[in-house]
Amino acid sequence: MNAHELIRRKRDGLSLDEEEIRFLVSAYLKGEVGDYQMAAFLMATAIRGMTNAETVALTRVMMESGRVFDFDLLGAPVIDKHSTGGVGDKVSIPLVPIAVECGLAVPMISGRSLGATGGTLDKLESIPGLRTDLDPDRFARQVGELGACFGAQTEEIVPADRKLYALRDATATVESVPLIVSSILSKKFAEGVHGVVIDVKCGSGAFMRTSSDARELAGALEAVGASMGKAVKTVLTSMDEPLGRTIGNALEMEEAIRVLKGSGPPDVTALAYRLVAEMLRLGGIVPDISSGETLARSAVESGRAFDRFMNIVAAQCGKLDPDAAGFGLPRSKVVNTLVSRARGFISRIDARIVGETVRELGGGRFGKDDAIDHSVGVVLLSVRGDEVAEGDALIEIHASGEDAARNAARRLSDAIFISAGPVPPASLYLVP
Amino acid sequence: MNAHELIRRKRDGLSLDEEEIRFLVSAYLKGEVGDYQMAAFLMATAIRGMTNAETVALTRVMMESGRVFDFDLLGAPVIDKHSTGGVGDKVSIPLVPIAVECGLAVPMISGRSLGATGGTLDKLESIPGLRTDLDPDRFARQVGELGACFGAQTEEIVPADRKLYALRDATATVESVPLIVSSILSKKFAEGVHGVVIDVKCGSGAFMRTSSDARELAGALEAVGASMGKAVKTVLTSMDEPLGRTIGNALEMEEAIRVLKGSGPPDVTALAYRLVAEMLRLGGIVPDISSGETLARSAVESGRAFDRFMNIVAAQCGKLDPDAAGFGLPRSKVVNTLVSRARGFISRIDARIVGETVRELGGGRFGKDDAIDHSVGVVLLSVRGDEVAEGDALIEIHASGEDAARNAARRLSDAIFISAGPVPPASLYLVP
Repeated sequence: MNAHELIRRKRDGLSLDEEEIRFLVSAYLKGEVGDYQMAAFLMATAIRGMTNAETVALTRVMMESGRVFDFDLLGAPVIDKHSTGGVGDKVSIPLVPIAVECGLAVPMISGRSLGATGGTLDKLESIPGLRTDLDPDRFARQVGELGACFGAQTEEIVPADRKLYALRDATATVESVPLIVSSILSKKFAEGVHGVVIDVKCGSGAFMRTSSDARELAGALEAVGASMGKAVKTVLTSMDEPLGRTIGNALEMEEAIRVLKGSGPPDVTALAYRLVAEMLRLGGIVPDISSGETLARSAVESGRAFDRFMNIVAAQCGKLDPDAAGFGLPRSKVVNTLVSRARGFISRIDARIVGETVRELGGGRFGKDDAIDHSVGVVLLSVRGDEVAEGDALIEIHASGEDAARNAARRLSDAIFISAGPVPPASLYLVP
Repeated sequence: MNAHELIRRKRDGLSLDEEEIRFLVSAYLKGEVGDYQMAAFLMATAIRGMTNAETVALTRVMMESGRVFDFDLLGAPVIDKHSTGGVGDKVSIPLVPIAVECGLAVPMISGRSLGATGGTLDKLESIPGLRTDLDPDRFARQVGELGACFGAQTEEIVPADRKLYALRDATATVESVPLIVSSILSKKFAEGVHGVVIDVKCGSGAFMRTSSDARELAGALEAVGASMGKAVKTVLTSMDEPLGRTIGNALEMEEAIRVLKGSGPPDVTALAYRLVAEMLRLGGIVPDISSGETLARSAVESGRAFDRFMNIVAAQCGKLDPDAAGFGLPRSKVVNTLVSRARGFISRIDARIVGETVRELGGGRFGKDDAIDHSVGVVLLSVRGDEVAEGDALIEIHASGEDAARNAARRLSDAIFISAGPVPPASLYLVP
């Protein structure tokens, strides 16, 4: 077996078996196959695709490249949730403590922001002191003790994905269904989950722009999960409009906490309940979505989910003040307001432009080692369907300075579309 | 403009313009684009292909990456010949002095053997003392003085091809028409030729196995040549049987010299005359192939081509003894004979097996830095169509030792097929 022959076969659209994929990935991790050979293989895969069996093999080989957790001794169903990423998507943060209060264990390993979409880790790290770089033993212990932990991917967990993702990012091979599926599922399955609910975002602010691409990805995720004996459930949701009212790390954290206090925006709250319900159904705790949503709501309304969240944050060294304005999260120096120059109904707020604007304000990264300003971002004072008059405040801009705020205002004015007649509010779920 | 965007476009089957290709190749040569990014681009190109305009751009950019010769002041038409490589193909060696004697200048830069097919440089270097590593000024001066020079590709000539070819070899992207075309033509056009005749070999012993692949390559070569204002003429020839009677460096050199003395095997002689005639027609020296072949034959029969060859060899420090047996070329220690175990007619001698056997005898390379034993090889005592009796000598095996000779005999017995009824001799040209 040699790498050249395997690359050639993939180039010609043929399939590899698990032993061959294992050989290639192992040789790559050992440095016996160079970046240039793996780049050629990734490009051939991006163009030729992979069969379900090949994607399963790649997922398993990647998963087994590092530590694989096992939480079977906990006795609780171990179910995680993943989102393919969207603008304003902070759902994981309230979802984890709610799910734990409903009887699940959630060993969540998240990523950082890249591109126009945020990352759960960055949002969490807006909490002063909070650490996500826990060693694997401490991560596992916290899941046992508190039912959940918010962790970062370390050197020890799926190292193949870290190395392959960096190479994909440099070689225009990120957008490939089998490579996306193996990257997502290898990490989730390394967490030792019994199942995972995946929110596949679709629209201008998401990685998948069209519903057919989103459906293809969802189908591949579920098929690979089934082949590996893991329950994978996908939910397709719209990402043409930002999710919730806030975009930016600390602002999103504040909104996530308000969801836990029962006063979050309706779309974020509804999606959190729905995804928890899907997790509960996967874990066999409820028979249907409706009873799962009821269970989720009661975990919030009882205050238990909020308390659970505070315990998790404290265990990870985070300092939140539940009584302070903004919970003691960092605040930006400048807060300006963008006002409407027209009257009518908001017909669209372009999620991608909003995401890019927050990234430019310093809330996201252009290079993977860029530092993040957790305090910056935007608050949408009006959303699609709202009627606005000339001079009404549309968006609050939280910036590190006046220039940055002015630039953001200029960009954001292109993101908001106002029509003369009424517009229905944004719908969250894609028609299947 | 950035490399990632250009790779992505090629991945998606879109085209790049010359400025974009120039940016990518320049950045690669400067080390600003890494091997891994270029490997991804090469794989995308191998799968998606290139338009004629893209191949033209790549050829031009590669050509301009190093020194480009200009022989216009010579006054003679400057025409080269290239072969895509075949087993026993030594045609370039007699062709060059014949072409010069017919009025052309031939600044020939050749390659070394790789795989089962030989390289003109290795055959030339079987002449004791002969140097091909001439600096560009000396190369140009010799073309001016003697009408021809046999040179090697140095660091200064098409460095982009050296770097790209090594990467293609490692990433299974050698077999790609636009990449082959740009590699061949960038080197030939850097020689400063007005035109080039390309012998596209097709069959078991060639790079192109099928006639449709060979025709596709030939069409692309001629189209790119035309777009670049250079006359490119392809001739498609069969490479199912070895060319001539000898395979192995010194043995092929000896046969090449016999062609110059008018006593070469009919197929090599005919092909040399035909290709010279094509060159003469491209150079405007003759109106048709038939008068070109007549001119070529008279250059040989007059002894002028042989004398020209001896002058070129001497100018390149080679020592040939025209009166010695084997012209003073190296001889192997062991010469064994493979005899026929059947009677009948030779229906096929598999060129690829013969080429691989000579490579294993030490006449070719497995790695690019392998040393070559110029003395080893085989002489075909009978060829396709010949009638043979049991016990007749079929092949002479020239080896460095008895073991190597025995292994070669074992392999070669699988390369020769004998049928009961008569078989026509091999035909040289592919029906267009």
